Amino acid sequence: MPKKIAPQFIVHPKTVIEDASAAEKPLSSGDKEKDRAEAARLAAAIGEQQQMLYAGRKHKVLVILQGMDTSGKDGTVNDVFASVNPQGIRIANFKAPTAIELAHDYLWRIHEQVPVAGEIAVFNRSHYEDVLITRVHDWIDDKECKRRYRQINDFERMLAETGTVVLKLFLHISKDEQKARLQSRIDDPNKHWKFAPQDLAERKFWDSYQKVYQNTLHATSTPHAPWYVVPADSKPHRNLVVANIVLETLQKLKLKYPDPKPELKKLKFD
Amino acid sequence: MPKKIAPQFIVHPKTVIEDASAAEKPLSSGDKEKDRAEAARLAAAIGEQQQMLYAGRKHKVLVILQGMDTSGKDGTVNDVFASVNPQGIRIANFKAPTAIELAHDYLWRIHEQVPVAGEIAVFNRSHYEDVLITRVHDWIDDKECKRRYRQINDFERMLAETGTVVLKLFLHISKDEQKARLQSRIDDPNKHWKFAPQDLAERKFWDSYQKVYQNTLHATSTPHAPWYVVPADSKPHRNLVVANIVLETLQKLKLKYPDPKPELKKLKFD
Repeated sequence: MPKKIAPQFIVHPKTVIEDASAAEKPLSSGDKEKDRAEAARLAAAIGEQQQMLYAGRKHKVLVILQGMDTSGKDGTVNDVFASVNPQGIRIANFKAPTAIELAHDYLWRIHEQVPVAGEIAVFNRSHYEDVLITRVHDWIDDKECKRRYRQINDFERMLAETGTVVLKLFLHISKDEQKARLQSRIDDPNKHWKFAPQDLAERKFWDSYQKVYQNTLHATSTPHAPWYVVPADSKPHRNLVVANIVLETLQKLKLKYPDPKPELKKLKFD
Repeated sequence: MPKKIAPQFIVHPKTVIEDASAAEKPLSSGDKEKDRAEAARLAAAIGEQQQMLYAGRKHKVLVILQGMDTSGKDGTVNDVFASVNPQGIRIANFKAPTAIELAHDYLWRIHEQVPVAGEIAVFNRSHYEDVLITRVHDWIDDKECKRRYRQINDFERMLAETGTVVLKLFLHISKDEQKARLQSRIDDPNKHWKFAPQDLAERKFWDSYQKVYQNTLHATSTPHAPWYVVPADSKPHRNLVVANIVLETLQKLKLKYPDPKPELKKLKFD
């Protein structure tokens, strides 16, 4: 049994969110091409696992992606799940809530999108925005924030107990790396569409975000729904980390195709 | 301040579900016509409260109706909410789950239907079926049942904490009364559509249902989502009880129309 890679990235009581760790590359071979090939191999293996997940219609898999603007949430979806049959995966993007969403509890629109048996659902942002941006801007106070931590833990525990594997990934970039990525969105006309002036406004709250992220990861990383911190300054390395975590999580389910039906062999038809 | 009527019906540690109490009529004046008039007055008052609830768009009200077959869930909706503007109320009937519902956690379809701000939602059956019929027929064991009690309490607490008043009513009829009502569905051709042979099959499990109901009421009656036991052998009296509980619950919210806007008086238009 090869040593597991994922556990080293799980949030633990001493986890600190600071710029320095965003650039770490513990999984890199030092050779970019080799790393790319390995990430592609992992993506293919995830695709194979998902076929069995889909055939079995038993487990549900929920992958939650969080991170600062430009941290690579879209890119991760694109790269890591490239080989997955689109029929068995669904990406849910959670933007600013609509009026009808705001008129419900904040978990309402989240629960609606949880995966069905046999499916992988990837949340690009999630209910965690309701304890992140809201807390950074003091739209909620500490007491309400802690209440939401409890509500979120209860909710995710229920999902886990009813057959959903919940996997939460924080894509961790440094402030300098964000600067470079924002600049490239301005410099490259083909990336203009990705640039939102709002991102610059939020960037002013960088330190506050790091602190609130850290608090949130500590309060909501649980055995049934652990948080992983993914060093994400390097995109190829980020893909390696995410792909390993996703693949190892799927492998733990010991997925296989449902039992063959010998009686099928006897069927005759023209 | 007149004495409150609702509290006497709240489930307490000594509450026993037995046939004898189904026929009690503590609210009756002894005069049927007078009782009907009082129920109509209460229904009208509920309608007025709901107008303010709708105008304020702040609170959400969830009324959960449970009870044995023929216990009067449909009739209660019809009678007690007769004066409510249909725009501010929504009835959700939970039948046997569909394939897509079964492929999710059992709270998924429930959460989808919770009330929006300003709305009253009435659940005709609910997630409680997932600890009632399922437990009676041993589709789930005691351990799973207790786990669901916890999940349900967590879920309802989250609803309460996010602005939903949760009100749960057990319409309590006796076995003899059910017999009479089933018989009348057979005798009256206009009621044939209400009769389901399945009801006779379930009736065989009467004692088990009473026991499982009692366990469930005790395990899930909480300060944020109390259970009320409504003696329901008498329909007019049942309406009196339900209407009083609903009205008093709404009155506790101290609803009023949003503050007037004096500037509106100055508007001129032709």
